[in-house]
Amino acid sequence: MDLRNKTLCASGFHAPERGLIDVLEDVLIDIGADGTIKAIHRPGEPNYRSIREAREETGELVVLPSGSYLLPGFVDLHVHAPQYPQLGGALDVPLEVWLQKYTFPLEARYEDLAFAQRSYRLLVDDLLANGTTTALYFATIHQEATRVLVDICLERGQRALIGKVAMDNEDECPPYYRDSSAKAAIDGTRAIIDYIRFHPENGDGRVHPVVTPRFIPSCTDAALKGLGALAQECGCHVQTHCSESDWAHGYALARFGATDTEMLDRFGLLGRRSVLAHSNFLTASDMERIRVREAAIAHCPLSNAYFANAVFPLRQALEKGLHVGLGTDISGGPSASMLENSRAAVLVSRMLASGVDPALPPAERSTAGVAQIDFRDAFYIATTGGGIALDLPVGQFQPGYAFDAIVIDTTAEKGSMRLFDQVEADDQILQKIIYTASKANIATTWVGGLKVH
Amino acid sequence: MDLRNKTLCASGFHAPERGLIDVLEDVLIDIGADGTIKAIHRPGEPNYRSIREAREETGELVVLPSGSYLLPGFVDLHVHAPQYPQLGGALDVPLEVWLQKYTFPLEARYEDLAFAQRSYRLLVDDLLANGTTTALYFATIHQEATRVLVDICLERGQRALIGKVAMDNEDECPPYYRDSSAKAAIDGTRAIIDYIRFHPENGDGRVHPVVTPRFIPSCTDAALKGLGALAQECGCHVQTHCSESDWAHGYALARFGATDTEMLDRFGLLGRRSVLAHSNFLTASDMERIRVREAAIAHCPLSNAYFANAVFPLRQALEKGLHVGLGTDISGGPSASMLENSRAAVLVSRMLASGVDPALPPAERSTAGVAQIDFRDAFYIATTGGGIALDLPVGQFQPGYAFDAIVIDTTAEKGSMRLFDQVEADDQILQKIIYTASKANIATTWVGGLKVH
Ligand SMILES: [Zn+2]
Ligand SMILES: [Zn+2]
Repeated sequence: MDLRNKTLCASGFHAPERGLIDVLEDVLIDIGADGTIKAIHRPGEPNYRSIREAREETGELVVLPSGSYLLPGFVDLHVHAPQYPQLGGALDVPLEVWLQKYTFPLEARYEDLAFAQRSYRLLVDDLLANGTTTALYFATIHQEATRVLVDICLERGQRALIGKVAMDNEDECPPYYRDSSAKAAIDGTRAIIDYIRFHPENGDGRVHPVVTPRFIPSCTDAALKGLGALAQECGCHVQTHCSESDWAHGYALARFGATDTEMLDRFGLLGRRSVLAHSNFLTASDMERIRVREAAIAHCPLSNAYFANAVFPLRQALEKGLHVGLGTDISGGPSASMLENSRAAVLVSRMLASGVDPALPPAERSTAGVAQIDFRDAFYIATTGGGIALDLPVGQFQPGYAFDAIVIDTTAEKGSMRLFDQVEADDQILQKIIYTASKANIATTWVGGLKVH
Repeated sequence: MDLRNKTLCASGFHAPERGLIDVLEDVLIDIGADGTIKAIHRPGEPNYRSIREAREETGELVVLPSGSYLLPGFVDLHVHAPQYPQLGGALDVPLEVWLQKYTFPLEARYEDLAFAQRSYRLLVDDLLANGTTTALYFATIHQEATRVLVDICLERGQRALIGKVAMDNEDECPPYYRDSSAKAAIDGTRAIIDYIRFHPENGDGRVHPVVTPRFIPSCTDAALKGLGALAQECGCHVQTHCSESDWAHGYALARFGATDTEMLDRFGLLGRRSVLAHSNFLTASDMERIRVREAAIAHCPLSNAYFANAVFPLRQALEKGLHVGLGTDISGGPSASMLENSRAAVLVSRMLASGVDPALPPAERSTAGVAQIDFRDAFYIATTGGGIALDLPVGQFQPGYAFDAIVIDTTAEKGSMRLFDQVEADDQILQKIIYTASKANIATTWVGGLKVH
């Protein structure tokens, strides 16, 4: 049920800061008429009992059943909405081939609005069912299809940040799928920004526009410069890909003699609301630049195993204080599940820490310094980290934050969890959720207090 | 429904040999009174139509709905049955610490038969729901609890290979959890072999006994020697761990000046029905020895990321002609799903191929030669490879093989799959199943033609 003007009594978890899992037991969460959290009351507090009784009397109290746990909704920091039809396929070739062979032809199909309608609707519904309450979307180059995605997110109630993809470089983009000029890329971006900002259904600003140069190889200097100016002018979010693979990282070096990060900065595309997908091959000075600009990185662990040639040093970035969130990178990553990507984040960090090649002695095999994270960091970037990256009050249970949340039903019959008595201490249930839950365990999803799944 | 004495009309996939996915479309599978496949008829064949009509008339024909795909049941080649309660937990320390801190205390609890009953029942039911039709189980050192596991597998209908764990080395096993002597380890193993072989409910031999020295560190020479002799005498399966981590691999070298594989061979534990878990640090001559002995390896990709310090070179082993199957290694691996382990097998092979450390140049980062596998190899080891490893007629759809099979319902509402029109060619649906299906997509599981989920 919708929870606006209600008080939810729940147990669960959130990560108010890195390394800290706040274990909630029978807390009362007051949710306002606008879907934000007004107050949180914990059982230890003096007036907890009286508040609970008062809410019960007025019929405002909603109690989560035992065996169910409340988590912040997931913030998926990198989704290519049009690529959903090829999720779990097209994983056999490197990035630069994959784009031309599979991805551009698929994205080009979104000129067909019936296809866009059907595909985007399934995607948004499936992501909500997967517990993704906020998604940062690359759409396609198309004006109409991108508006369809905006409309569907507004209709379905997902918090979304959506960008028309800008890609006008004739050398890297095929004739059947590119902006006809830098001006077309910029004007098209501006048109979508206006469409979103003045959309009659978007009064509460749940859908945000995003300046979206695909990545440096696919854009001309004129487009990058114009998009940077547009981002400055409108103050909106920016998303792009950064130093993803050896090839992509090498491309900017060859074209500009500078890294992706440096060039994005020069073009005015690196700011507090910029999200750089992947960023595997950042130099130390790139990292420092991203930190100073307060830009963010979308870490996509599953995708990286297929397309990036290396593991993003997540722990290093977190310890340097960079903003980092988690992304599925649908469809470069073959899973739409933020749970599956969370556990993958731990997995690949372990492999970066230990190395992979058994033919090498341990000292040579393990070369990356301290790299290992655990489920707490994975959960943090999947929720809190994503909210910080986007500069939006989501991903935590705090007064003033949107009530974007999910319920994990650990007892769901079709689910994949099995709790035993001896693990029910502290944050160990959260660990089991991160490792063993699946879509069928997600019983409810709320965005801004409204039930969307 | 049960399918003994029925004919199933189905579409689906199996992997009769490595690299070959046999795409089945509306095949008729005749299943005998004993649950084995009697014949397979394909639409192209001259008498397909008349056979189909005849089966329909007699009411023997069962037709799988469209959107559902038949796969061989999974063969999980490495499961620690007693560790199921800690699945998705206890992943923060290295193998040798993990055993003493978490695992031996948990396994010791199976002296409590009520706990064993509850835990083993949930495990077997959950594995059947996950599509695991055959499991190779390590139990505990306990006689009674191991018999409970045998009884439950017989009752629930899972094909199972079960060993009482033998571990008698005072230096490596704690006083509260070890066999009191080599003789006790051997006698206890023999007692379980007899219990399984002469079990009144096991007339068709669906449950098999397994000689199970935990691994070389936990056994004395006397136990290893006696278990080797016992394995020779009774001709039954053998399972153990082999060269799993730097520590485990180094242990045998320090104690014997020889590798795990060499020592297992000397003790008579390396034969056609031996399954070596992990085996990450095999030397070239270890690999050759395993090949010559026709022993098998249980590859456990998820577990290895947490405990093995390196990736098993699966492709190399397959190309050398070794028998390899896939294992979850519950609970070293944090997932009970063979689907999730299948996709992990691809993932870690990609990471072994590319390397992981972005600080290294590509040529130094990637050191392991040709390592990359795809979903076809993963599916092969999860089904066919497991059957070959165990020397049992399971894992493929062939006359004479047991009808051990699962149905993937790609349209299941709680499931995690979404098929679009453009991917429905050849084995692309299988690829989507391997990457995106979860437990909720597994609609039915049969073992020997009997419905067990
Ligand atoms: Zn991307
Ligand atoms: Zn094991």
